[in-house]
Order: sequence, then structure tokens, then C-alpha cells
Amino acid sequence: MSSAISSCSPSLLGQDCGLTSRSQKDFPRSRTPKFLKCVASPPAETTAYTTKVQRNANMEKLRAGYLFPEIARRRAAHISKYPDAQVITLGIGDTTEPIPEVITSPMAMRAHALSTVEGYSGYGAEQGDKELRAAIASTYYGALGIDEADIFVSDGAKCDISRLLLLFGASVKIAVQDPSYPAYVDSSVIMGQTGLFQMDIEKYGNIEYMRCSPENGFFPNLSTVSRADIIFFCSPNNPTGSAASRDQLTKLVQFARDNGSIIIYDSAYAMYISDDSPRTIFEIPGAKEVALEISSFSKYAGFTGVRLGWTVIPKELLFTDGFPVAKDFNRIVCTSFNGASNVVQAGGLACLSPDGLKMKDVVSFYQENTNILVDTFTSLGFNVYGGKNAPYVWVHFPGRSSWDVFAEILEKTHLVTTPGSGFGPGGEGFIRVSAFGHRENVLEASRRLKQLFK
Amino acid sequence: MSSAISSCSPSLLGQDCGLTSRSQKDFPRSRTPKFLKCVASPPAETTAYTTKVQRNANMEKLRAGYLFPEIARRRAAHISKYPDAQVITLGIGDTTEPIPEVITSPMAMRAHALSTVEGYSGYGAEQGDKELRAAIASTYYGALGIDEADIFVSDGAKCDISRLLLLFGASVKIAVQDPSYPAYVDSSVIMGQTGLFQMDIEKYGNIEYMRCSPENGFFPNLSTVSRADIIFFCSPNNPTGSAASRDQLTKLVQFARDNGSIIIYDSAYAMYISDDSPRTIFEIPGAKEVALEISSFSKYAGFTGVRLGWTVIPKELLFTDGFPVAKDFNRIVCTSFNGASNVVQAGGLACLSPDGLKMKDVVSFYQENTNILVDTFTSLGFNVYGGKNAPYVWVHFPGRSSWDVFAEILEKTHLVTTPGSGFGPGGEGFIRVSAFGHRENVLEASRRLKQLFK
Repeated sequence: MSSAISSCSPSLLGQDCGLTSRSQKDFPRSRTPKFLKCVASPPAETTAYTTKVQRNANMEKLRAGYLFPEIARRRAAHISKYPDAQVITLGIGDTTEPIPEVITSPMAMRAHALSTVEGYSGYGAEQGDKELRAAIASTYYGALGIDEADIFVSDGAKCDISRLLLLFGASVKIAVQDPSYPAYVDSSVIMGQTGLFQMDIEKYGNIEYMRCSPENGFFPNLSTVSRADIIFFCSPNNPTGSAASRDQLTKLVQFARDNGSIIIYDSAYAMYISDDSPRTIFEIPGAKEVALEISSFSKYAGFTGVRLGWTVIPKELLFTDGFPVAKDFNRIVCTSFNGASNVVQAGGLACLSPDGLKMKDVVSFYQENTNILVDTFTSLGFNVYGGKNAPYVWVHFPGRSSWDVFAEILEKTHLVTTPGSGFGPGGEGFIRVSAFGHRENVLEASRRLKQLFK
Repeated sequence: MSSAISSCSPSLLGQDCGLTSRSQKDFPRSRTPKFLKCVASPPAETTAYTTKVQRNANMEKLRAGYLFPEIARRRAAHISKYPDAQVITLGIGDTTEPIPEVITSPMAMRAHALSTVEGYSGYGAEQGDKELRAAIASTYYGALGIDEADIFVSDGAKCDISRLLLLFGASVKIAVQDPSYPAYVDSSVIMGQTGLFQMDIEKYGNIEYMRCSPENGFFPNLSTVSRADIIFFCSPNNPTGSAASRDQLTKLVQFARDNGSIIIYDSAYAMYISDDSPRTIFEIPGAKEVALEISSFSKYAGFTGVRLGWTVIPKELLFTDGFPVAKDFNRIVCTSFNGASNVVQAGGLACLSPDGLKMKDVVSFYQENTNILVDTFTSLGFNVYGGKNAPYVWVHFPGRSSWDVFAEILEKTHLVTTPGSGFGPGGEGFIRVSAFGHRENVLEASRRLKQLFK
């Protein structure tokens, strides 16, 4: 994040922060003028009882708040300042359109059934319902040699990122696309894998940042990338909206094989791919021995609030001693998780039914939104990326701070976007514009942007 | 676990293990004759590609499978052996009775509403819906100074145990009741807090085991307990069924204050308390500065498969440097979790409505089951503990191995129980009998037990 984050009170946590309000002066300024080192600073005066438990040093390494709550906080502050403004959110990638009844009805039926002797069920399998696992395997990985036993159903990809890092432990080194979804880095910091944040380069010491920019077509120059144990790779990428081609993914898999690395491939936006880019890493020969995949119903089926995702760990993926990664992950899932909700899994199963594929209409709707936004920025003379295979538009503001652009757009148009630098130093100078939204809001956003940047 | 676990193939993971079947001989026997060190042993012959990623050393410290999947595996093996037997499960503490419609209908309505423009919602607050947090605070902690902002809604207490240990990091030392719910120890092992398992004493080196036995009324002798950073304390206790009294909890809170420790108080069974034992640790003066509490709708509302719980972290709970524990937990929740399902939270809110309190009838039903089981074992001359304030009956078989008793009961009566030693060395010689079950099954179990032990 850039210098535009200039205050650092507990309200960074957002309104539902679990803390009482405290004035900003309780948190002393750090010696570095550009940043406020809020996360490690105790209150100035402490007369209350304190335990003798040390704060986890890894938590102290985290930078301010998680990106999206920080944006929510700024949105709330803006609304307080302009209570009559019609604020439109193109910030957090949050779905807005209703879910077809072919999906919600089975959830409702499952809920009702819990009131009957025959329909009641208690603990399900930690790995997910057998039928849902089988349906995920056959729908998305049918011809690729992935079967039901390789699928672990989750309450969302974000939750599985932390469980996966718990699986790999504190001593692995990770690599991330730069920019990328911030949960990879933040979860890794919490696990103690990253070293300290280095203010001058805006990077953690022990993370390999794989720069993805217009210059390299948003695919990293692997010849300059150092070996990492774990490579997070999101395609279509959040935030750049760029999907890696088959050739590029083939290079990535070969790179992992050469280095003995494990790819954590995030395919949460795969349903938005409109060209022949692979929908899953397992389309690439040899991937099953070096990759696992996390995915989600969130962006496809509008399940951001319903909560359902999955992780694929092929039985071929082995640690260096030959021990199967899936076996350890199974142990993590059994110990730290109790399965996704039975009601929600009924909805997931319905998504994969022939009728459930009607969700594609909703995806198409968001794709039309994307086109409107791409056309808007293009017509204004901006260099615009993404959009084709993802619900995100990545707009370049060369030489400007992302947070300044974010703040200007919010102040002058009441539109919430996401500053690119929130996704890593490689995002500086960009903003991400989400295409999730009602049509009239997207059209109104387009009008306001044309007014501002005409 | 005792020597009764004598095989160690991947089938320990259960049928849904995410792995292909592999013959037992692939896993060589360890040099210790009493145990098979399966978790660290690679396949004997490895010709397949392996990555160069090291297996997490903490995972290697875990002992065989998590307890309950292991029991599920043995149950499945028994059914294979006796396909016509009417197996009755009093093992896993899994609810069996239908949920009243006053609770399932709001879930169904919430699901249906997701198909409407007005009723659709995407990402909710990571900490849970404001209304549900407020209802939990007022229903359970109304007069105790806990408010909405102190409540973090979760997808279940088990899931929050891992998130809490992630919060505290690898360098804390934990204490547990012995016996206790195995997720405390196993989650702590995975986090790297425990040291190695010591075969001779059946304990991890760096865990403080607080023995709870009939001799001390199932409350540890705190004068012999070494300081730990984190004290897991479950009351009513799983597995012993014993609830700590107000005096005992006052001593526990004082012990934590003297040592500067943090208590993770697990009140998942609080709704089963039938005497005046405290329902929450926050009934004890001074607890807010040394305790947080995890709890759940699972055992109260039959939500074991629906998935909903919560964690209370008072704003008064501070690390040694004065930093609020809740603030770091909020960061964990925002990074590693995305909130409980919106459909499920609607059910949770209904549980706390005046009509929702009808769930108490279901609790009473299980309490009657408990009485039947207590009477059964008492009439057979066993020393029986628990049952009064919890849905668990803790039966003593002095001098016998828990796994042997488990195996005998399963073999001769087709009843699944839980071996006490699965909860820690202090559980050796006991079995836990769960009172969750349909009435006819509990009565039939009683008949079979009377037949076996007459």
C-alpha cells in the first residue's frame, strides 16, 4: 500500500472489529514518515491487566489491515462524508445477481429435510459429500484422470489457502505472481514463511515475487525466478484479469518439475474464460505430479456469501520422501475442519446438474458488464488489460499512485475501485475495476468515469 | 491410542481418504513393536516423480489418524464383517434428532431469498452477521459485559481451534485436560507447539497434561500444573461429561491470572448443564482478562452437519505488550476465513429466537437418553461418571485397555463406543458412551449391554 494510507486506528478493522473505539493518538507514529507501523504498536498507556502471553511475531509482520476490509472502511468513511451520494462499488469482487432457483430450491429442500427423521443428518465427511465430490470430479476433471477421491470440498478457496499453508509448515518458501490476490501473501506471513517486510522495496524478504506486467504479457519471466517450494499461480488472474495460455502453463509446469516445486493453482475464475486457455492446470501433461488446485463456487454460482469451494490434490503429488501430499492434507482437514455445511453442499450439487448450468447466463451477464467497462476506459484513452477471460478490468495510470487514483475516483465519482498496489508492488500505477454489479450501476459508473476523465 | 491399533495402511484415512488403495506391506513396520509409526513412513518402493518439497515435520509428529475417522473406519470394517448386524453408534458425539421447523424454515427462506434481487447477498462480514453476533451476545452473555463486537461467528468450534492456534503461533506452550477432546492436541501438534510424542508416557513433550480423574473429581490439581501460555479447558468436559463448579472455575481463573496464561474455554456442551455450574467462563469475575471462549450450535441445535459456532474474545484480553488479542484474531479471521454461510447464519439467528428455544426439548430428549445409559451401567456395577451435565457417559473398566473394551463391545454387541485413551493417557481404562441417538437405539443398546455384562 502506498502513502495514501495515512491513519492507523483500530477502525482499520472496519466497523465490526471486535474492539472498542480508541482515538488515533493512542497509536504512536512510527519513525518512518511514509508508513504507520500500526500492527505492532501497543497502546501508549497500559494500566490494565495484561497476560504474559507474547504476541505472535508473525502477526506483527503483517501490514495494516487486510486489503478488502480496508477498502470497506474507506467506503464507509466516504458514505459518512457524503450521506446522500449514490456510492457504487466496483471494488471487492462480490457477486450481485440472484442465484437461479434450480440451485436455491435444493438448498431450501435440504434445510426443510433436516426437520424430518429421514432427512436429518449430522456430521458429514470432512472431505465433503461423496456425491458432490464425484460430481466436481466428473464435471471439471472428467477426462483428466482426477477422481472423486482427489477432491476435498471446502467452505471456500480462501479458507483452504490457510489450511494448505498449515499443511506445508513454516519452513517452505513461497512464490507469488506480482500482483496477486493478497490472501496468499498474508496467509503465508501468518504461517511464518516470509521473513520481514522490507519497506524500501515493499516486499517480504523470503517471498519470490514473479512480476506480471504488460511488458511480459502478464506471465512471469521464469528464467529470472528463483526456486520456491510453493508457487501460487492464479489464472485467470486476480487482479490483472489475464489468463495464462496453454503454452505458458506448459512452461510453468516444466519450471515446477525442474525445481521440484508444488504449484497451488487457483482456478476460481475459470468459468469466465472465453477463449481456449486451459480451465484447469490438470489440462497440462505432467501437472498432476507438481500441482494442486483450489477452486470455488463463489464467482461462478454467486456463492460468495453461501460459501463453497474445493481443492484437488492428485494422488500423484508426492513430497520429496514419496509421502502423498493428499494424505497429510486429509489429516489437516479431519483435524481443523468439519466439512462444508450440508445445506450448502446440496446447492453445490445442484450447480453441477444440467439445470444448474443455467448459471452460465449469470456469468455471461457479468461478461457483458466487463465489456462495458473495458470500452469505457479504452474510449478514454487508457491502456486496459484483463476483461476477456475474467470479471476484472486492470487499468493503467502510469506514474500515479494506485491509492491516489482510488481516492480521486471515490471522491469525485463516488465509485469504489481497488488500488492495484494492494495486490503487491507490481500493481502500483493500476486500479482493478470489478465487473460484478447490477447493469444500471455499471452503466452509471461508466457515465461518471467518462465525466471525470473526459 | 493403545496397541489395539495394529495395522497402519492408508485406509486409516477412511474410505474417503483421497488416496488410492495400497497394500499394507508398502508401509514398513517401525522398530517399536508396540506401535506402527505409519505417519512418517514413505512407500517402500518409489519410482514415481517426487517433488523436492519436504514433508512438514510437524505432520510427522501426529499419531496415526484423527480419533473419530479411525473409529468410523473400524465401524465400517465391522459392518463388512457382519453385514446383517444392526450396528448402533454411540461413538462420535453426533446428533440424531430432527431440527424443529422454526429453525430450518428460516434457513430455507434465506436460501429462496437468494434467488431474488432484494434477498440476494454476497460476501458477508468475516466476523458474522451483525444481528447474529448481537443475539449471541445478549442471549448467552447478556449481563456479563460481553457485547456484539466481542463475538466472532464461525463454521464451528473445531475450525476456530486451528485459527486460534494460528493466532498464537508456534512458540506457545499449551496445557490440556487429560483426557480431553483430541482436536486441541492434534491442532497444536500441527502448529509445531508440542515437541515429539513420547511413546513411553504417551504424551507430547511440550504439552502440560492436567490429569482429570475420579480421584480429583475431574478437576486438575492446579498446584502440580506447570505454567502454560494457553490452557484448553472444556466444561462440561468431552469426554468425561464432568462440568466444573463455580468454585473450581474461580480457582482456574485465578491460576491463569497468577501465571499470565490465556484460557481457551470450550463451552460447546453448556446447554446440557442441569445444575448451577457456570454456563460460560465469563460468569467468573476476572475471566475476561484471561479467557476467551469457543462454542457451537452443533450439540444444542443439532447443527453438527449444518456448521455454526462462535468465539468470544473480550476486548479486555491483552497480550503481554498490551496488544488486544481480539485485534489479531480479527486479522486472522479476515485473512483465513470468509464468514459462515449466510443461509446457515439465518438458522443460527432462529435458534436464539423465543420459538427457537424449543430446541431445549431436543436437549431434554438426549438428557433422558443419558439417564438410560447411566442407569444401565450403574445397574451392571460399573463406576459411571458424567451424564448429569453432558451427553456423555464415562464408564470405568479398571485395569483394562480402552481399545480392548471398545473392540469387545463392538464385536459382541455391535455397539460403537469411543475408547477413552483416544482422548489422552488419562482416559485409559475408560470408554465414552454418547447419548446422542434415537430412543429405540439407546434402549436396544442398553439391552445388549445388560446381556454382555450381566
